[in-house]
Amino acid sequence: MTEFDLINDYFSGMTRRRRDVLLGIGDDAALIRVPKGMDLALSVDTLVAGVHFFPEIPPADLGYKVLAVNLSDLAAMGAEPAWVTLALTIPQIDDQWIAGFCSGFTELATRFDLQLVGGDTTAGPLSVTVQVQGLIPAGEGLRRSGAVAGDDIYVTGGLGDAALALRCKQQGTDQREDMEQLSMRLDRPVPRVEAGIALRGIASSAIDISDGLVADLGHILKSSGVGARVTLDNLPMSPTVAAALEESGDWAMVVAGGDDYELCFTVPPERRDQLAGIEKQAGVAITRIGVVEARAGLRCLHGDGSLWQPDRGGFEHFANGSGQY
Amino acid sequence: MTEFDLINDYFSGMTRRRRDVLLGIGDDAALIRVPKGMDLALSVDTLVAGVHFFPEIPPADLGYKVLAVNLSDLAAMGAEPAWVTLALTIPQIDDQWIAGFCSGFTELATRFDLQLVGGDTTAGPLSVTVQVQGLIPAGEGLRRSGAVAGDDIYVTGGLGDAALALRCKQQGTDQREDMEQLSMRLDRPVPRVEAGIALRGIASSAIDISDGLVADLGHILKSSGVGARVTLDNLPMSPTVAAALEESGDWAMVVAGGDDYELCFTVPPERRDQLAGIEKQAGVAITRIGVVEARAGLRCLHGDGSLWQPDRGGFEHFANGSGQY
Repeated sequence: MTEFDLINDYFSGMTRRRRDVLLGIGDDAALIRVPKGMDLALSVDTLVAGVHFFPEIPPADLGYKVLAVNLSDLAAMGAEPAWVTLALTIPQIDDQWIAGFCSGFTELATRFDLQLVGGDTTAGPLSVTVQVQGLIPAGEGLRRSGAVAGDDIYVTGGLGDAALALRCKQQGTDQREDMEQLSMRLDRPVPRVEAGIALRGIASSAIDISDGLVADLGHILKSSGVGARVTLDNLPMSPTVAAALEESGDWAMVVAGGDDYELCFTVPPERRDQLAGIEKQAGVAITRIGVVEARAGLRCLHGDGSLWQPDRGGFEHFANGSGQY
Repeated sequence: MTEFDLINDYFSGMTRRRRDVLLGIGDDAALIRVPKGMDLALSVDTLVAGVHFFPEIPPADLGYKVLAVNLSDLAAMGAEPAWVTLALTIPQIDDQWIAGFCSGFTELATRFDLQLVGGDTTAGPLSVTVQVQGLIPAGEGLRRSGAVAGDDIYVTGGLGDAALALRCKQQGTDQREDMEQLSMRLDRPVPRVEAGIALRGIASSAIDISDGLVADLGHILKSSGVGARVTLDNLPMSPTVAAALEESGDWAMVVAGGDDYELCFTVPPERRDQLAGIEKQAGVAITRIGVVEARAGLRCLHGDGSLWQPDRGGFEHFANGSGQY
């Protein structure tokens, strides 16, 4: 048994036990009994040090975030999180670092009743791959491909905080008073799991916003074979982001900044009335930001009716490639 | 869309389409309908350049091997491979390298009717994480924990070839005539999937040999709360390994070399007669190598009845930590 095998023991009691897990950590594979009438949703994401996160990130934040970005993908399918696997590659064994990582991971896993059922720990440059498995009543999975001209477009929560936080860190302007709150939005995004589940049978399409609204709504439009118009003035944002936007005029932070982990989804107008209940049920604001159109392409309109033009620089952000392929 | 997203398109048509996959690559998550009456087996393994493989490994061999080591875990559960996800981290985009990787991966995936349903491609130090999902009739999964005193112990195929191949490469004695054949055992192990499936309801416990017979049989013994006696002269090995053993007397190569990816399993004596049929059905030799005993610990006996003593050096091998935790 190597030192790395010993770590595995550490993980064994980390999350709660679910009744549908026949065999968890400690054999050649985990054994799971998927409940009758449920479809299985699978999503995997890798975060690499220096590419998706600063190598000096507090390990608890990393443990939290790698799970959060994966749960955000399940949320976008309307899936209920169930089981997770963790493949952790670390340069050396540092008990304190591992304990920190586990605490952040466990905090979020526990909140969503996830059981860690397997994984692998290896030596190498720091990188984490997590795969989440979730459940959806048969046939009710939310896809990117169901948007139809005339559907309204919505987002949960607010946009731009994570991008602003990242910018402050990169520019060294992170001494501001509200930095802690901003950092939370970058380091501890809340996956919109409850909203995704509540949107089953209501949303015609959904995606999570990991690479920025323009890019991710773009995926919905492409998959659905439609276009859209978004009214920039309707985009939900925190007072902090609104102030930064007023100062810089940089809309890219809001529409192309990435790392928001909000849901973007479309709903036929006749189901609009159901959204107030979902807002309450899921505990997150839902804002109508635009409408699906038959004409291809995404048009983001300023208040004066002029088109927002993406500046190439606006699309650069720290994290990328974090979506499912 | 980044360059890395573009790669994802490459993977889309790589494997066949299964009817139980409702939604494959291209959404936030894959959607799968697990057939009725089947349990789900999950296993994940990471291979890191310089730790688990030589960085200059032909990419097709890497694509093959990362899938093979995972399928070997499914084989040890008696699971039928079904769906796979691939998280690939590469330093830069090299079309030829990627094409090579895909060809090796696809070759094996196709052989076992696996569909690639999702993944993630990221920039970073070369490393690959694969998760395989397999199916087992409810309750029939083979575990490590079922061995009972009196059960016979068996292995599939032969032991030591991969360790010998690795040693030749490391010592620069890889100019030998039979090197190509030896290398195949290291780089292209054949996961014993058919044997694992055939052993459902017959084997009382099973594991795949990734870290060497002593270590992996040790896992069975520990999980089952038993001990064992193994007769070294009964261990199956190729003429090449037998010749190298005769020369060096180094039994560690055979019992602790690792990377064999054979199955080690236990069978109650009253089911012994069924193994001939399984040998034929699975197309692989099955050899009785010892017996489970109530007394804890593993005793490997030479022909003269003396105990083999592990030399610490014998336990060092290139690959490690490749088991499920």
